[in-house]
Order: sequence, then structure tokens, then C-alpha cells
Amino acid sequence: MPADVVTMEKVVSLCKRRGFVFPSSEIYGGLGSSYDYGHYGVLLKNHVKDQWWRAMLRERDDIVALDSAIIQHPETWVASGHLAGFTDPLVDCRACKLRFRADQLEEGHCGRKPSQPPGSTDACELTEARDFNLMFQTTIGPVKDEGATVYLRPETAQGIFLNFKNYLQFSRKKPPFGIAQVGKSFRNEITTGNFVFRMREFEQMEMEYFVAPNQAPHWFEHWLAQRMNWYTRLGIRPDHLRLRAHEPEELSHYSSATSDIEYRFPPPATPAREAGGGRWSELEGIANRGDFDLKSHTERSGQKLEYVDTASGERYVPYVIEPAAGADRAALAFLLDAYDEDEIGGERRTVLRLHPLLAPVKVAVLPLVRKDGQPKLAHEVHHALRERLGAEYDEGGAIGRRYRRQDEIGTPWAVTIDHESLENRTVTVRDRDSLAQQRIAIDELGDELERRLREPWRSPKLSG
Amino acid sequence: MPADVVTMEKVVSLCKRRGFVFPSSEIYGGLGSSYDYGHYGVLLKNHVKDQWWRAMLRERDDIVALDSAIIQHPETWVASGHLAGFTDPLVDCRACKLRFRADQLEEGHCGRKPSQPPGSTDACELTEARDFNLMFQTTIGPVKDEGATVYLRPETAQGIFLNFKNYLQFSRKKPPFGIAQVGKSFRNEITTGNFVFRMREFEQMEMEYFVAPNQAPHWFEHWLAQRMNWYTRLGIRPDHLRLRAHEPEELSHYSSATSDIEYRFPPPATPAREAGGGRWSELEGIANRGDFDLKSHTERSGQKLEYVDTASGERYVPYVIEPAAGADRAALAFLLDAYDEDEIGGERRTVLRLHPLLAPVKVAVLPLVRKDGQPKLAHEVHHALRERLGAEYDEGGAIGRRYRRQDEIGTPWAVTIDHESLENRTVTVRDRDSLAQQRIAIDELGDELERRLREPWRSPKLSG
Repeated sequence: MPADVVTMEKVVSLCKRRGFVFPSSEIYGGLGSSYDYGHYGVLLKNHVKDQWWRAMLRERDDIVALDSAIIQHPETWVASGHLAGFTDPLVDCRACKLRFRADQLEEGHCGRKPSQPPGSTDACELTEARDFNLMFQTTIGPVKDEGATVYLRPETAQGIFLNFKNYLQFSRKKPPFGIAQVGKSFRNEITTGNFVFRMREFEQMEMEYFVAPNQAPHWFEHWLAQRMNWYTRLGIRPDHLRLRAHEPEELSHYSSATSDIEYRFPPPATPAREAGGGRWSELEGIANRGDFDLKSHTERSGQKLEYVDTASGERYVPYVIEPAAGADRAALAFLLDAYDEDEIGGERRTVLRLHPLLAPVKVAVLPLVRKDGQPKLAHEVHHALRERLGAEYDEGGAIGRRYRRQDEIGTPWAVTIDHESLENRTVTVRDRDSLAQQRIAIDELGDELERRLREPWRSPKLSG
Repeated sequence: MPADVVTMEKVVSLCKRRGFVFPSSEIYGGLGSSYDYGHYGVLLKNHVKDQWWRAMLRERDDIVALDSAIIQHPETWVASGHLAGFTDPLVDCRACKLRFRADQLEEGHCGRKPSQPPGSTDACELTEARDFNLMFQTTIGPVKDEGATVYLRPETAQGIFLNFKNYLQFSRKKPPFGIAQVGKSFRNEITTGNFVFRMREFEQMEMEYFVAPNQAPHWFEHWLAQRMNWYTRLGIRPDHLRLRAHEPEELSHYSSATSDIEYRFPPPATPAREAGGGRWSELEGIANRGDFDLKSHTERSGQKLEYVDTASGERYVPYVIEPAAGADRAALAFLLDAYDEDEIGGERRTVLRLHPLLAPVKVAVLPLVRKDGQPKLAHEVHHALRERLGAEYDEGGAIGRRYRRQDEIGTPWAVTIDHESLENRTVTVRDRDSLAQQRIAIDELGDELERRLREPWRSPKLSG
């Protein structure tokens, strides 16, 4: 089987057909680069977020959770530097009237000669670049001209810094410790696209890890390893991931070191696809933010944001190591890496080889025929599994077609009820990847599937 | 013990002290009626949402999930009626310069004579009432004067109606079926307050249930019963809940019947507390929205939003029954109803008698002393429980103080490791409510606690 049958179009098409992701506000013609998650997309993304929380809260003792407001006090963005510096340089074309990012002209298309990037042809007459802030602005209070101007947060991180003092007090944690948050952020980007990869409204999974300054390099390395491991153990092929350290000139003003975890996305269009090609793009950034944020907020607010060791009397402003991941990008990467095609009995099959923990539905329950008491027993089995695992019942159409449908949404196991089931209360369990069928007693089914769900897992694509 | 020791102040104070809820952007002086959820608040609210999803997706087969964008196409709000009609009538006082809701003058306080409501005294000279739209407005696209005006959604429901057609196609559901969604909504209210009860940024749990028009009254009753049951089985006292049918003149333009599930909130201030008093306020509204939404979006978009039965050829625009709950209000109601005080050995104790499924932490693991190998064994026990259930380790301070801390965050069970534990690998399990201590083998601990977690539960306050 070819190692790389996946293209972005195939996954976008499957996402729409099977109810993972729909273009937002579609009946009104859509809203550029805005998407709604359908049923299976909600389940998949929830499982991605669950696994992130699990890695942060359940596999260690040094991290606590936060959920801060999207609209924060506007001073936040003065201190963080976003109000002054969170900008893109934009240029306008006087001829075609389109607007482009000055630093990404080679990726744009001139409105008059779409085969050409703007600026490369005499058709496009570009203005000087001007800086535009990427924060969405709105007004709080009921009247526009009297209300206060506020911003939708462009990152969740600042909510964590604002609460640093509260957390020292109630949590009794001391460095090294972290505060983790999952939630929506908003950036008014001009260059969006590539499906859910870059949207103006997106969901982040960020954690700020506070450490003694001299320990920062050690913890930076620790989090690089931890986060790479999280993606691979949930099924991303190691050769589809890489760590890329930012060059000194690429670093943000607050960071002394940043590395991106990059994923090898397939190119958007099949015709543009090169042999063995693909585009490395950021899934997650891991940054050493130093003491920039806590110091800035201390200056701006007048509140001392520092750690005081009551035993030794030592006091310092902690350094911060930040693994900042995108929930939408992670879900997309898991989908892309799981996408596969093979042949069963001469028929082409599309299958999502998702890690069972990420699969939207864990088990499908299918009566072989819609008679002879099979649906009744299947409902009984389904109801027992549904609450424990998340299960789906399907009695419509030929059994082969029902298997294919579950394969396409990545369901790892299908339980079939047949005439023998009614005689001896056993069922067959079909494995999505190996296609092996095993006969199991109904009474042992729940325990057996929960056991399989907890087993270490390795993508079958790796041996392909 | 008094049935009703709880006041809003006590709960607000506990929420801050123990890390459930903090005023947002506090280091910058806060942002009116905006709150951040701290560690235990995140866990509690996540458990509330989990239980809602469970009731929607895992206990029945007729509901699917959606997660639509916060910023939708602006035509959405033309069709829904929000752009024209989602307004509050506001009046200004020419003397004190404050602004009030014209329909809530009796609850306001004049800026000059705070003991008096505006309008009741000659100090306050009110303008005529004017209508102000409650939607937050922002601009998409990088430049204010050229971008498009869009709105932050004031309800999640409309995202469901926009996707109705997609769901008919991929999900193969037919009426009666529902689409459920959890997410943030935004309303630029002038009257906020009462802690997290009324915030401008809040989280909804909404489900739109599509039915044949003649079945609407039946399903309306069904959902009233289902939703009342959800609150009581998760621990709200039945006498703290009531169903209140809207009067005809109270109904929204789209609804032929609406009932609110109301909770008896304690009054905000102790001095204002009356004997047996309290204020009934809406937790959730259950509405028969008829075919208003699907018809409006059909008209506005030109896309036919109707159901066609392929077998019978019957076609109709489904009616919609909507149970719309607030996640923040639900979490607050569970906290208020769980709050209790009692006495142990002559000492006053504050305890949150939360349903174990809602409790932020399920089990605390406590070595009796910080020596003799007890911490090592306690860590082993903690690590085994942490991944399965959500557990906390605490070795700091006297055991009684550690129990109190867990009582205050509502942890149902505390496992104590003592000298006997090292001899025979047994531990004591202390119950938060009965205070009973039971000796259990370490190897059976996980199974035993999971069993207890699944048991039906009844608040001990009910027998108090």
C-alpha cells in the first residue's frame, strides 16, 4: 500500500461527507475560513482536548487548570505588547484592489493575473506596507460611543499571567509548576486558509510552566520531549513530525528560545503535489518566555508578580516555559495521519486509522439482519456499551456497507450480532485495521473493549 | 443543622479562597461582571458539561453534537430577529448620568440618592427609553472601515439551524431528533451581576429537538420532565427547583410555549435575607419554537430547510423544542445547593456536598505522617488512582486540617495511609458526608471507588 495516499482534498471531502467539519454559515454563502464541527468532529476534537488535559493533569502533579474570560481588561494587551506590536504588514494593490501580507507576497495571487504573485508583474502596483493590528476589537457597555474598547483575546496565555498571584495563594504550588488552559482565541488575519489550519477563530491548548530562572533551559528541553511524545503516542508517524528551532531573528520579543513542533501537511491540491512532497507547518510552539510577561504585568498593574519562598526567603520572578498547541491543528493532523485507503475483496476502502482513544465512536453494534430477534439483542448490547464507551447502532443496509461507514469515521471495533448470538450470547468483534474477527461472550464485551482501549497502540500504517 | 445556612457571600468567598472562581483581570481592577474559573471551578464546570453531554449523547440515540463558530454570517441575525429585536429599553438620568433598564427601574439605585430607585425621586430626571441592541459588534477583515460588521453570537442555537440541512444529509436522522451544542455566547447587558449568574460572556448548553408539528406538545412535556430530572438526580433539592410557564405576554415572538426551570437562589446579601426567603431565577428555558427559525432562514437564504420522508413523500418544516441551559448558572446552582456547614468534635466545618460525579476531585490521598515510608506508599496509591479517577495528594499539615481542605472543595473520599498500611497494604477510606471510615485493601481501592461513583446518590442534606 502506498505510504502516502492522503491529500488535503480527500480529507476535506470526507470531513464534509461524514459530518466532521462543515464550512460555517454555508446557507448564507459562508464566512471566509470559518468552520463548524459536525457530530464526529466534535467527538474527535473533544477526545484530543481530553488527552491533552490527561497529559497535563492526570499524568503529573505539578499542573493546575484555568478557564479565563475571552474579553479581558484592555490594559492586558498594553502590557503584553499586543496592542503595539501584534501586527501584520499589509500592502494594497492599486490596480486589482486586493490586499496582501507584505511578507508573504510570493504566496499571493494578483487579482488581474492570478497565475502571478502580486508585485511580480506590472499589473500589480503595490502601496507601501502599513501595520494592521490583528486583534478583534469590540465595545463593552451598551452604547458604542460611550462604552469601553476591548479586544477578543489573541491568545489564552495572558489570562494565566493575570491569575498568577491567585494561583500561588490558593494552590500552594511553588515553581516548578504550571497552569493549563484550553479555549478560543481570535486573530483577524488576512491570510487564512488551508481548511481548519488557519482560522480567525480557533481553539488553543496552552500551558505556562513557571520555573526558577536558572532551571529554564532544563525545563525547555523537558517540554520539547514531552510534547513530541504526546503526538507520537497518539498515533502521528514520527517521520511526519520535526522540531524546528527558531533562528535568532525569528524569535518573538519576549522569547530567548522557541522551537516549533512541525507536521508534514500534504499540499492542498493534488496537481501541485510533488513526489514525496508536503509542507512542514507549525502544530505547536514551545517557548522560553523568560520573565517578560510577569515583569510587564507587574510594571503595568503595580502588583508584584513574583515568587517568595517562605522557608528560605528567596524571592524571584519565575521564568516561563510555554507549550502552546492548536486544538484544531492537532485534530487536523490526527485526521490526516490516520487517513488511509486499502482494498478488501477487490473493493477500495477508505479508512481512518485513528488511535482508539481519539476515535469519535469506539464501537458500532450491527445486527447482521433486520429480523429473527437480532435487532432486539443488538439494542441490548448497544445500550450496555453506549454509556461505558460511546457506541453507535446501525441496522440499515448490507453489512459490508455498514462496516465501510464505520471505517470512514475511524471506529476501531464493530460488533456483529448474528443467529449464533441468539443461541449462545456471543458476538463477533471486527477490528478496523487487521480485519480480524473474534468471537466474544456478550457478558465480557465491555471489559474486553475497555482493556483494548487502554492498550499501547501503534499505527498499522507504520508497517505498511 | 439548619436547612439553609448558605448565602451568596459565603459561596463567593469560598470560590475565591479555594480557587473555584476569581474576578477576571483583577490585577487591573477587574472588568465588571467578568469571572475566570480557577482550577477547581474548571473541573466542576467540565463535569457539569460532561454530565449534560452524557444525558444527550450516551443515554439516548436520537441526538448528535455540533460545535459552530462564535462569529457567524451577519445575515443569521437578520433572519433570527436578533438584529432588529434583541434590545433592551434604556433610560438615562440627566442628573446623575447613570443609565438604567427602563423595565427594571425599581431594582436600580439613583446615583445621587442610592437608597432610592431612579425616577422615584426628583433627583433623577429620566430621558425617554431608547432601544439598544445587546449583540457585541466587531469587524472582520483587517481594516475597520473596509471590513465587514459581524456579531458575537448571543445564543448558540442559530448555529444549529444553519446546519440543519447538513445534519439531515450526513446523520441519516429523521424527526424526532436533536442537535446539541455547548459553547460561549455574548450579550452586552447593562444589568449584570449576582456573581456568575449573569455575565456578558457566558457558556450555554443548548439542544434543538426537531419534531413533526403535531408531536410538538408531546415532546415539550418530555423535555420538561427530562431536564428537571437531570438537575435533581445530580443533587439539587427538589424543593429548590420549580417549573414556571411563561405568561402569554411574556413569550418570545418565536415561541408558542416556554417554561423556565427556576432555582431558588439565596439573596445576595445576608442583611437582606428574609426568613425562608430566596429568589427564584431561571436556570434553563424550555421553549416550543415552532417552525419560526427554519422558516426564517429558508426565506432569508433561499435554501429549503424542511424534512422530506423519502418513503411516504411527506414533507414538512419541523417544529423545534429547545432546552437551553446555562453552564455557569448550573455550576453555580450545584455549588449553592451543595454548600453546608456542620460541627465535628466541636469544630465548625464547611463542606460542599456535591454529587461525586460533579466533585472536582474524586479522592484525596493523605499519608498520616510525613515519615516511616508513608509518603512513598501514598504516592504509589495516588498515582494508581490519579489516572482512573482524578486524585490529589496532600502531605502538608495536620490530618484534620487536610480533611477540612478536601471537604471545602467537595472531595467525596479521602484515603489515609497509616502505619498499618505499610504492614498489610490496607488503607482507610473516609466518607465526606457520613464521616464513616472503612478499611480497604489497596488492590481493591480503584474498583471500589469506581463502584461508589456509579451508585445512585442522594444528597445527605435532604435528611437534615
